[in-house]
Amino acid sequence: MKVIGVIGAGSCNNEIYELAREVGVGIAKMGAILICGGLGGVMEGACRGAYEAGGRTVGILPGPDRAHANQYVTIPIVTDLGHARNVLIVRSSDLLIAVSGGYGTLSEISIALKLKKPVVGLSTWPNMEGVQYVSTAEEALNAALVSV
Amino acid sequence: MKVIGVIGAGSCNNEIYELAREVGVGIAKMGAILICGGLGGVMEGACRGAYEAGGRTVGILPGPDRAHANQYVTIPIVTDLGHARNVLIVRSSDLLIAVSGGYGTLSEISIALKLKKPVVGLSTWPNMEGVQYVSTAEEALNAALVSV
Amino acid sequence: MKVIGVIGAGSCNNEIYELAREVGVGIAKMGAILICGGLGGVMEGACRGAYEAGGRTVGILPGPDRAHANQYVTIPIVTDLGHARNVLIVRSSDLLIAVSGGYGTLSEISIALKLKKPVVGLSTWPNMEGVQYVSTAEEALNAALVSV
Amino acid sequence: MKVIGVIGAGSCNNEIYELAREVGVGIAKMGAILICGGLGGVMEGACRGAYEAGGRTVGILPGPDRAHANQYVTIPIVTDLGHARNVLIVRSSDLLIAVSGGYGTLSEISIALKLKKPVVGLSTWPNMEGVQYVSTAEEALNAALVSV
Repeated sequence: MKVIGVIGAGSCNNEIYELAREVGVGIAKMGAILICGGLGGVMEGACRGAYEAGGRTVGILPGPDRAHANQYVTIPIVTDLGHARNVLIVRSSDLLIAVSGGYGTLSEISIALKLKKPVVGLSTWPNMEGVQYVSTAEEALNAALVSV
Repeated sequence: MKVIGVIGAGSCNNEIYELAREVGVGIAKMGAILICGGLGGVMEGACRGAYEAGGRTVGILPGPDRAHANQYVTIPIVTDLGHARNVLIVRSSDLLIAVSGGYGTLSEISIALKLKKPVVGLSTWPNMEGVQYVSTAEEALNAALVSV
Repeated sequence: MKVIGVIGAGSCNNEIYELAREVGVGIAKMGAILICGGLGGVMEGACRGAYEAGGRTVGILPGPDRAHANQYVTIPIVTDLGHARNVLIVRSSDLLIAVSGGYGTLSEISIALKLKKPVVGLSTWPNMEGVQYVSTAEEALNAALVSV
Repeated sequence: MKVIGVIGAGSCNNEIYELAREVGVGIAKMGAILICGGLGGVMEGACRGAYEAGGRTVGILPGPDRAHANQYVTIPIVTDLGHARNVLIVRSSDLLIAVSGGYGTLSEISIALKLKKPVVGLSTWPNMEGVQYVSTAEEALNAALVSV
């Protein structure tokens, strides 16, 4: 079984949301488990894509209950660990796809690179040595297929 | 969706293993997600039962990778949090079924009672106010059906 | 250097508060660091005793900032981990003294026994194999002196 | 009371070690508590400086015991949380001083910026919006004095 993490901001514009959704569709079609932070924005877009394609979506939630999980999370993990839960997303993933994202995403990319996990970057923090940058969801999915 | 946690010792005799397995079968038949610590003993028995009945099995692993997950975990969550991961099992569950168990299990029962989650006890720590004690896997599953 | 953990309920009657305070005084006089959950009740009583006797008091706080630390914590550690921070109190202590306490305290005693840390019990959960039960703060401190 | 975090790589050359040490001396002279990850390199240099100047040094250790704490840590906090402990260092600090550092340090800077904590940068990851870059330990300490 393969687990692919999708990381990115909790709120985003429609273009980024659709990009994340396309990534989610592809992860489900690969037969991989999608793991993410379980909230809105990129996380919701990715879960939605995977969910609509019949995939499994894990949300590693930062809060004390499921209240803030997006509706496309099929396997909610409630941590109550706040930002420390970011490390669990990275540890649990075979590969991470970063879509856009702010400082939380950067912390996840950093931990992933520290742990030598492959990271594919899509419209995200630039110029990180070790990140494989791509331009489309299709390229991200192809990169994931090669790595995991 | 319902999530049922199964907690118990990481090594156990065959009788307890079969009891856990029977609980796992029932959780899968209920259509619920089984969540546990992902290791051996009671955790493996429960995952095996659910797995063989076609259910989803989440293992919240204490170590830094999947190396110690039992083979019936279909959704491995790698925490590297050691015993602190016990709290995540409790938080993520709608109800917990304790099967036998040592001090780790007692810590999980304690956190569950603190969080006012229902706990069903099967051959486990006795005399805990708030635990619903039962004698068979079937009774445990019936108690779970009523509560969640 | 020695680190002694004091665990107990976040609210308590005056008698238990004074018992915790006496324990805190003794820990400071021993030259040990007192570590606890940093909140009210037994934690505050113990910190107060140690603080007034010139000792160092560490509060391992469950929330996202220092807002709820009692005023006698001199070294606040902000975890935002919720109940998972209980494990850190146990891990950081050479020995634990349990004063009264509810389910949170029971989870800490359980983890301590699992990790084979010495636990001294004062008016707390009874009949735990491995806990050294005593009747007064003085006896608890003597037991601590022998063990660490 | 003020708590200043020092973040940086676990191994470093002598020049960076001495820079960290100078920062540690200044934190102790300010009367602030120094908090860090408790290991070697920049963490050891900073703890050593503060220790030798009579300050309090907190090490938030990633492992399951104190074995890897540097000898200048006076208050060891044992987390067994691995990299998730980075978040605790940030949460516990009023301000962070980053000295050199790799991906672990970048994850800490990211979390700090996410939490809107002031970050002073000394020979560290460049071009991070929100980091106040300085060139000497003295400038870092002056920046800290102004902010906390």
